[in-house]
Amino acid sequence: MADDDRSNLLNLACPLPQPSDDRIQLAHGGGGRLMHQLLERVFLPAFSNAALNARHDGAVLRVGESRLAFTTDSYVVRPLFFPGGNIGDLAVYGTVNDLAMCGARPLYLSAGFILEEGLPMESLRRVVGSMRSAAGRAGVTLVTGDTKVVDKGKGDGIFINTSGIGVVETGTELGPAAVEPGDAIIISGDLGAHGVAILSVREGLEFEAPVVTDAAPLWEPVEALFRAGIEVHCLRDLTRGGLASALNEIASTRGLSMRVEEARVPVSEVVQGACEILGLDPLYVANEGRFAAFVPAAQAEQAIEVLRALSVSALAARIGEVTSDPEGIVILRSRIGGSRVLDMLSGEQLPRIC
Amino acid sequence: MADDDRSNLLNLACPLPQPSDDRIQLAHGGGGRLMHQLLERVFLPAFSNAALNARHDGAVLRVGESRLAFTTDSYVVRPLFFPGGNIGDLAVYGTVNDLAMCGARPLYLSAGFILEEGLPMESLRRVVGSMRSAAGRAGVTLVTGDTKVVDKGKGDGIFINTSGIGVVETGTELGPAAVEPGDAIIISGDLGAHGVAILSVREGLEFEAPVVTDAAPLWEPVEALFRAGIEVHCLRDLTRGGLASALNEIASTRGLSMRVEEARVPVSEVVQGACEILGLDPLYVANEGRFAAFVPAAQAEQAIEVLRALSVSALAARIGEVTSDPEGIVILRSRIGGSRVLDMLSGEQLPRIC
Repeated sequence: MADDDRSNLLNLACPLPQPSDDRIQLAHGGGGRLMHQLLERVFLPAFSNAALNARHDGAVLRVGESRLAFTTDSYVVRPLFFPGGNIGDLAVYGTVNDLAMCGARPLYLSAGFILEEGLPMESLRRVVGSMRSAAGRAGVTLVTGDTKVVDKGKGDGIFINTSGIGVVETGTELGPAAVEPGDAIIISGDLGAHGVAILSVREGLEFEAPVVTDAAPLWEPVEALFRAGIEVHCLRDLTRGGLASALNEIASTRGLSMRVEEARVPVSEVVQGACEILGLDPLYVANEGRFAAFVPAAQAEQAIEVLRALSVSALAARIGEVTSDPEGIVILRSRIGGSRVLDMLSGEQLPRIC
Repeated sequence: MADDDRSNLLNLACPLPQPSDDRIQLAHGGGGRLMHQLLERVFLPAFSNAALNARHDGAVLRVGESRLAFTTDSYVVRPLFFPGGNIGDLAVYGTVNDLAMCGARPLYLSAGFILEEGLPMESLRRVVGSMRSAAGRAGVTLVTGDTKVVDKGKGDGIFINTSGIGVVETGTELGPAAVEPGDAIIISGDLGAHGVAILSVREGLEFEAPVVTDAAPLWEPVEALFRAGIEVHCLRDLTRGGLASALNEIASTRGLSMRVEEARVPVSEVVQGACEILGLDPLYVANEGRFAAFVPAAQAEQAIEVLRALSVSALAARIGEVTSDPEGIVILRSRIGGSRVLDMLSGEQLPRIC
């Protein structure tokens, strides 16, 4: 047997250990490159199917005559309570927004709680109360749930999973595959408030003006775009990894390029200042009430008008465009005029942001 | 102002602390009385709606022309790997079984992972591989997922939430409300193997014969009952809290009584022996591949025949009947002939069994 053959056999029988890949790191949950590797190396090979392979925020499924969207997210944000919200409303808005990004009106939510022994009952009551209000605001009904308790020291207060079902209200297939060269890239508002709000509590920082989370339900502006007849190609909420990761994901899935004008990306003065102090780039910071929409350039101005008429998307802006090449790359034209590649982070700026 | 009035005002403004109720205990997750109190005092008041109030294993929802079942469960079983299974296949079977108990053919699953930093990648691969096999065996497709990572010491290896969607295939409404006096109580097989399998690993016990989990998908026997024309009134899987808790829940929701013959409840010799050593009552031990069916007495023998023809329910047995009174009580006629109330446990026998 030739050496080459033998080494192939060995590889098959006993893959060599991969040191950088052998244990879960915090960055595997961060929305960056490591999370995508985990998806590509562990999850997709096991569960490969059309719905999962579409790499969307949720799956779109045909059931009877209806097209349903189905999505899931677990929430492990730290701390549980932060300026403008808590893990409860975040768990509602995050999941209804994934449905909205599928073009689906959110209808039903499930809630699975993993509680740590010793959690004050009052914290649970506050979180559940916020979920109730958030569900009301988002127009969804929480219809089924589950509670598990883990030993003290084996959890962290409250983890919540919410899964959601919605009915797709657009006739066209939304998603990275529908993005076209020439499409305008629109974002629904100013970036970075959620991440900065969380970090300010963690670090005990105070800014001139308080920074509160942007967490909010996003079906209303999505529905407004549909009603106005905007031919939406793709929607993506700008959560873990922020705008930069979302654009990179779509550019790489679709094999297209994105060009973004930094000066057109709205960031509030206080968030900009906070990011400078904290060494963060607001383009990578997580948002929980902001999304990007890809629409034909000819409809971009109308889309902006429609979004600006609603308070949740009053600061909507056209920030760039889709081009054919270089394939899979996002290019940022900076405020001072230079251009650079806006890459995907390998890990994350802020662990446990949602 | 009279003293009574003042104390009422105080109660409204600032409820007195309730010492037994002010922190989450392990038993709040155990399927017993404390879990029901949590449901009744915290969750139901916040989210009251018809689907949730039905107190079923999942919600049945009308979407377009279809009746969908929707359910969620988080899995925190300890250890992750145990005789006959692991947290991955458990997370698939547990949720498809909740759909089956709604009379629904399981179609789609979501999976939300909460991973602890430092988890060996190989453990994750094994768990994901088991989920894949289990999904194949259960005939469901995993269509959407999410991964979060928490700091070392803030989780416990792997927690998994699965939510499921199925299509209800029975014309009648299954559930506690449909249970009638005179109904036969059938269980689909022998009890206690899952709980004993878990505990034997935790305690490092070895029995004459190995006890492996009974975890298995249950749509096949449910579908067989429907196809045979059995008028099924209610189905309930016998998970946390075991047979005793399931019967108590239904008896109390429906305001009926249940009478069970202990001698008719199948328990394997090795499980019976293990329970005696461990001080457990198999009627309270969790199962992950067993259910109770409530059917008209006239169809009980036929139902048993249908179930016994399938390997997963080969040991099906008629164990008792539903009567009108005493309301909300389960009465056990013991092997030696006496009768006693089979109560709901306040906490649980085994924490983190699923």
